[in-house]
Amino acid sequence: MVDIKDFEVETLGECRVDTPIESARFVEDDDHVMFHYCLKDLQAYFEAGQTPPYFEMAGPRRNIYFDPSKLKCGIVTCGGLCPGINDVIQAMVMELYYHYGVRSIFGFRYGFEGLAPKYKHSPLELNPDVVTDIYLQGGTILGSSRGEQNVPEMVDTLERMNLGLLFAIGGDGTLRGAQAISQEIKRRNLKIGVIGIPKTIDNDISYVQNSFGFITAISEARTAIYTAHIEALGARNGIGLVKLMGRESGFIAAYATLANADVNLCLVPESPFSLEGLMAEIQNRLERRSHAVIVVAEGAGQEFFQATSETDASGNVRLGDIGVFLKEKINQHFKKIGVDITLKYIDPSYTIRSVRANPYDSYFCLTLGHQAAHAGMAGRTNMLVGYWNGQFTHMPISLAVSARKRIDPKGRLWNEVLASTGQPRTM
Amino acid sequence: MVDIKDFEVETLGECRVDTPIESARFVEDDDHVMFHYCLKDLQAYFEAGQTPPYFEMAGPRRNIYFDPSKLKCGIVTCGGLCPGINDVIQAMVMELYYHYGVRSIFGFRYGFEGLAPKYKHSPLELNPDVVTDIYLQGGTILGSSRGEQNVPEMVDTLERMNLGLLFAIGGDGTLRGAQAISQEIKRRNLKIGVIGIPKTIDNDISYVQNSFGFITAISEARTAIYTAHIEALGARNGIGLVKLMGRESGFIAAYATLANADVNLCLVPESPFSLEGLMAEIQNRLERRSHAVIVVAEGAGQEFFQATSETDASGNVRLGDIGVFLKEKINQHFKKIGVDITLKYIDPSYTIRSVRANPYDSYFCLTLGHQAAHAGMAGRTNMLVGYWNGQFTHMPISLAVSARKRIDPKGRLWNEVLASTGQPRTM
Amino acid sequence: MVDIKDFEVETLGECRVDTPIESARFVEDDDHVMFHYCLKDLQAYFEAGQTPPYFEMAGPRRNIYFDPSKLKCGIVTCGGLCPGINDVIQAMVMELYYHYGVRSIFGFRYGFEGLAPKYKHSPLELNPDVVTDIYLQGGTILGSSRGEQNVPEMVDTLERMNLGLLFAIGGDGTLRGAQAISQEIKRRNLKIGVIGIPKTIDNDISYVQNSFGFITAISEARTAIYTAHIEALGARNGIGLVKLMGRESGFIAAYATLANADVNLCLVPESPFSLEGLMAEIQNRLERRSHAVIVVAEGAGQEFFQATSETDASGNVRLGDIGVFLKEKINQHFKKIGVDITLKYIDPSYTIRSVRANPYDSYFCLTLGHQAAHAGMAGRTNMLVGYWNGQFTHMPISLAVSARKRIDPKGRLWNEVLASTGQPRTM
Amino acid sequence: MVDIKDFEVETLGECRVDTPIESARFVEDDDHVMFHYCLKDLQAYFEAGQTPPYFEMAGPRRNIYFDPSKLKCGIVTCGGLCPGINDVIQAMVMELYYHYGVRSIFGFRYGFEGLAPKYKHSPLELNPDVVTDIYLQGGTILGSSRGEQNVPEMVDTLERMNLGLLFAIGGDGTLRGAQAISQEIKRRNLKIGVIGIPKTIDNDISYVQNSFGFITAISEARTAIYTAHIEALGARNGIGLVKLMGRESGFIAAYATLANADVNLCLVPESPFSLEGLMAEIQNRLERRSHAVIVVAEGAGQEFFQATSETDASGNVRLGDIGVFLKEKINQHFKKIGVDITLKYIDPSYTIRSVRANPYDSYFCLTLGHQAAHAGMAGRTNMLVGYWNGQFTHMPISLAVSARKRIDPKGRLWNEVLASTGQPRTM
Repeated sequence: MVDIKDFEVETLGECRVDTPIESARFVEDDDHVMFHYCLKDLQAYFEAGQTPPYFEMAGPRRNIYFDPSKLKCGIVTCGGLCPGINDVIQAMVMELYYHYGVRSIFGFRYGFEGLAPKYKHSPLELNPDVVTDIYLQGGTILGSSRGEQNVPEMVDTLERMNLGLLFAIGGDGTLRGAQAISQEIKRRNLKIGVIGIPKTIDNDISYVQNSFGFITAISEARTAIYTAHIEALGARNGIGLVKLMGRESGFIAAYATLANADVNLCLVPESPFSLEGLMAEIQNRLERRSHAVIVVAEGAGQEFFQATSETDASGNVRLGDIGVFLKEKINQHFKKIGVDITLKYIDPSYTIRSVRANPYDSYFCLTLGHQAAHAGMAGRTNMLVGYWNGQFTHMPISLAVSARKRIDPKGRLWNEVLASTGQPRTM
Repeated sequence: MVDIKDFEVETLGECRVDTPIESARFVEDDDHVMFHYCLKDLQAYFEAGQTPPYFEMAGPRRNIYFDPSKLKCGIVTCGGLCPGINDVIQAMVMELYYHYGVRSIFGFRYGFEGLAPKYKHSPLELNPDVVTDIYLQGGTILGSSRGEQNVPEMVDTLERMNLGLLFAIGGDGTLRGAQAISQEIKRRNLKIGVIGIPKTIDNDISYVQNSFGFITAISEARTAIYTAHIEALGARNGIGLVKLMGRESGFIAAYATLANADVNLCLVPESPFSLEGLMAEIQNRLERRSHAVIVVAEGAGQEFFQATSETDASGNVRLGDIGVFLKEKINQHFKKIGVDITLKYIDPSYTIRSVRANPYDSYFCLTLGHQAAHAGMAGRTNMLVGYWNGQFTHMPISLAVSARKRIDPKGRLWNEVLASTGQPRTM
Repeated sequence: MVDIKDFEVETLGECRVDTPIESARFVEDDDHVMFHYCLKDLQAYFEAGQTPPYFEMAGPRRNIYFDPSKLKCGIVTCGGLCPGINDVIQAMVMELYYHYGVRSIFGFRYGFEGLAPKYKHSPLELNPDVVTDIYLQGGTILGSSRGEQNVPEMVDTLERMNLGLLFAIGGDGTLRGAQAISQEIKRRNLKIGVIGIPKTIDNDISYVQNSFGFITAISEARTAIYTAHIEALGARNGIGLVKLMGRESGFIAAYATLANADVNLCLVPESPFSLEGLMAEIQNRLERRSHAVIVVAEGAGQEFFQATSETDASGNVRLGDIGVFLKEKINQHFKKIGVDITLKYIDPSYTIRSVRANPYDSYFCLTLGHQAAHAGMAGRTNMLVGYWNGQFTHMPISLAVSARKRIDPKGRLWNEVLASTGQPRTM
Repeated sequence: MVDIKDFEVETLGECRVDTPIESARFVEDDDHVMFHYCLKDLQAYFEAGQTPPYFEMAGPRRNIYFDPSKLKCGIVTCGGLCPGINDVIQAMVMELYYHYGVRSIFGFRYGFEGLAPKYKHSPLELNPDVVTDIYLQGGTILGSSRGEQNVPEMVDTLERMNLGLLFAIGGDGTLRGAQAISQEIKRRNLKIGVIGIPKTIDNDISYVQNSFGFITAISEARTAIYTAHIEALGARNGIGLVKLMGRESGFIAAYATLANADVNLCLVPESPFSLEGLMAEIQNRLERRSHAVIVVAEGAGQEFFQATSETDASGNVRLGDIGVFLKEKINQHFKKIGVDITLKYIDPSYTIRSVRANPYDSYFCLTLGHQAAHAGMAGRTNMLVGYWNGQFTHMPISLAVSARKRIDPKGRLWNEVLASTGQPRTM
């Protein structure tokens, strides 16, 4: 059984300031979001006389930790682009400025570089006029960068600026960075809150059911899959091969497959396959229908590449390019068996990352940004804003970075994918 | 406390047939989705020694009721258009045909008219070839109609055709119709299952957290709001007024407001307002920013119209046109006080209803259609496929039609709307 | 035969300043765009010993009239929104600033109001930083207004500001206003150039084959027609009725019909019809195919309304609402003859007007804006930038406002419409 | 001076059949579209006592060559996908079927393969029901293939099927194929017309000002350029590099640059550049603005690659991949000089090719398809339907394939590109 301790969120201290914000529903101390949603799981805890694990619910508190008139906040955006970053920035600035009355908000430029003195990037002052309409564009108005910076130097910057709250929008690496900053703050006995906002277009952060930009990513994948479908139909034995994002988890590939009935094969890291099995399946499909659409997550089939210790600027292992690999292998296979095929390979990566948030994600980002502001004002730290069972939650960063969220090959999602494509469970 | 009895789903009888489908995860008898998701609500039940209420989980069963080789299924689509109907039809046909092996599936034409002999509409035979690619288009390939038909005559048709399963895609009225059909079937002691798939672009069916087409509707509303925003900016004291769907519940208006930071005022049926308060608020906004964007749900402000007993073909009370009403009132008000304004009124209704499902909804519809097929094959009847805490569920039609789902003016959603627009709680 | 005198463009005086701009192709004095494009028309002129009529070609000149370092320019945008206004503003500012070196450019706010002292609108200073990215949004960053202002007062403003060049983006009324300003300038013997940029989403300005925003308007109309098509298919005897822009000329309706094979009837002002004929045609169509899509230009069928002398703020005669009229007449007709129909009426007007320019129009607007800048710098005045046979031209405003461009019911365009819809020539 | 003989179109014989179609404007024998549009060019001819060159005007004739009731037509689509092919097919089928009354129309499958007996592809029977709605999808319903087939064998097929008219939609290679077929037909003294419809997304066919799909291609390029822009802004010294289509002619790159003000550098085959010049220009731009967007046509900079004699299936020389090449060279350059950059490379090729036609192209394709049908019925052969000065024309295939249309580096278009990007004429 999951340990309830892992769900406990750190605070800077007691909340003694009356909130200036109006709300018909403040979150109370006993507003908890159940971790489990199935009856039998819960019954086990109650029968064992234990409290089942839960998340602290996000939202505005009656009492807050910081005095808004004296508070200085900072926002930093790190890693690759993801639809909705500007929406989150806008939401946080609007909430802090209009509802809490915080008048001093800074945006650090180009990710953690903006906190490292050596780059000499001046922070951008943020206020409602600056952030008006930024949600109309993709990307991040703050700029971003990959990779770590020296933690003590970054905390020096925070001290020097007399910052009270740091909001960090970023992925796994960024969250680890935020954790390290938070620990250094604690070591120095400072009262600076650090709030993470999980950004992962792959939607692979543990205990976070939906991360912003993910639904937009699935939406945008439609164009690539349509391309593959039309190209496949346009030639005898046409094959459209689409590589989608998903380094360790194939959620984008799986959901995009379910969202587009034209996909005939979906390949993800969580469900290994043999090349023989794959070729047989493609051949089978071509014989029956004379065209095929294949979606492959970038992290699928990594077992076909030699292990490498190379990493990119974010510290991620450099993956073999499964799209190019499969393109070649499929072409070779059909050449060998004397079947003329026409394969078109589509890799839409940046196009998906750079679009603005779709309306669902704009809504999600707005609400997420508000929760981040509430959490920060209420003195929470070393935490991130999560999402569970339709509710925004608070969770320790440590819980989020403990492991990747991955598709369960025996679970509902993958079963739906198999049902939709008709592909065999094992290839 | 909610009564657990209300959640019980009817069945046609025992499931004695082995399912032909492959799955790594069949739904078991004790897979229950909790109705509550907050710890304290659950604790109350456990402390009182009661089982907390739950939904039957949707999904494939190891044993089913019908012998697929002998089964004849029918599908009917009723009421106004909603994005995703074709996706649901396609998903059900593909699942029934390929996985269960059902070879006889019919689509009734033009809603319940297709079941009423007097219209002489021949049903359309459905199979994978017919439904390939239908998800690329909006609307319904079966056609639709509004309003009721004679129930015994419709059941006569089912008997005459020797149908075993009827899937009805429709809203409140359709579900009541399906319930009536189901009761007549029971009265005649027939073994015909009736499965409802809730279709409500307003997302206002009780105990269903998300209904298909709703996310697409929010997406499409963006165009209308952008129009209003650009027109409002294009003139001195420009006002953009957008009427969105939402007869009794303002969910589309509220979410569209959260998804578009440019909205300055959101009016919904659940939060009444006075004309004086509204005019004061608009005036206030024009003085500060010289333009304003207003979103109004079609059911808002109905108290300004004289009660009427007129109904449309679906039996819904004919609403006063709040959009046209506000357009006139706002123009009059500013004329009276001598302020030149330029108001542009936008009513995108059909455009939203007729688009194809966006990718999220295509995914949702596919999965929903699969669950409907599973539920029907497993002998459930007089039920609909619901969605709760991220899980598909089975629930009695009676529970769904008992009341409308509405925005809680003291709840999270409405608080977020107020925070986003800055409008006062009471006007 | 057309008189060549009508094509002569006014100038402020001789061009004695060397242009600062680099070009591999300056326009020379004998670069003339033929008015005619058919051989036989030209032969007639040559045989009669006459020079056939031609337009002055637009483009950069080697010698210009103004000294850029001392020049002050103004831009004004008038009338309803049209896709591409911001693109034109951006192009003019970039060209004037970077290539000619003009450092003083002002945008008048809210149309001619911005030139009328009584409104006290301060002009906006324009430079590359201000106009960067404005092409990403619809509308006009300067705001607009309808209607005339006092001409001498406006010229007073120009004198007071010491303006050398005024660029006016607007339709028929605006161009007449620009002409009046230009004449008042001449009367006062000032050296201020006035350059019109024709803005008419209806594409109805004479001797201008394509006006900016028109292609975007046709594009956007697709959504409305698709809506009509899907709604028409979704019901027995479904009719989708779409009203498109086109006060006196049905170009948008005609081209949108040609761009969407689903349109079955196209009604324009240039081809009158009887209600009996129309009803018979609809009935005929419903009997054959049981659904119909009708496109009507807003100015069609005005003969069904009583003459009115009412005008709107722009001085245009207030039209009867043919869309609402036809909706009622069609419903009445089929009720009378006892045929159940379902008619959905769609009026997308503002949505079309407020979108940003599509890429073709962005290209067109950029080039158009450049030509306007060139024309102004070269001392041309009381003219507008036209487009003929694929070339940008200079033409006197008087020629443009002499008459509306209209569809020739015996010409190629209308013949193609009839061929595409299959509708009879006379109804 | 251009020789008027080159513009003469071949015919099968005299037109003795009365056309069954209704039109208010038949094309007459003396309806000629001038080749020149500038006055001085024409004057030269008239002064020399010569008739200036002209195109035969396309359109319906009063008298036609074929008896529609006995005519059998075939349509074939070859080469890569291009938006609008389905629109052209639909337009031809509708015109031939409804207006001329041709009842026997076949679509050959998979390009010229469909005419070569050895592939055994059965032709698809085409009629209004089959082509309804095909314009809603990209690609070609007939399928396509690249490369030549044996000409006598293809003509054998035409003879065996007793075909009277063959419509070939394709690019340079296809048109040469059509020419060869036409010559073989003449050699055999058969009366089979061959009508080419030029398909080139690059818009590079001589004497054809606009080819279908080109405007859509420019439209779709916007997404890729936006991606590049947002990615470039999202990083310090961010560079977005977009490769667009354009093997020998940079029209797509040039127009896409003019349509998107964010492009800072445009590279086309017609304007060679040195790597040093390019690097200096990028460096310059990064120093001033710290980000840059570069558009490169696929055929640009081919001089950097070793000459190769390799060709693809269509017989085109295999190009070096300038996109990948520049990506590496730019990265190397800035690494060498110690400047951190972040370069994102975007290659949207198939996505652009596979979309459906945008509304402008749908209109264009419809009209083009009608003209092809008219030309065929009027007994023209060995010709293609061109477009000149806004008019559809007939021209001999030989004229079209004589040379590629290319950007004139001293002409208007390239001057506009330089003005828009601010890039130097020589790098």
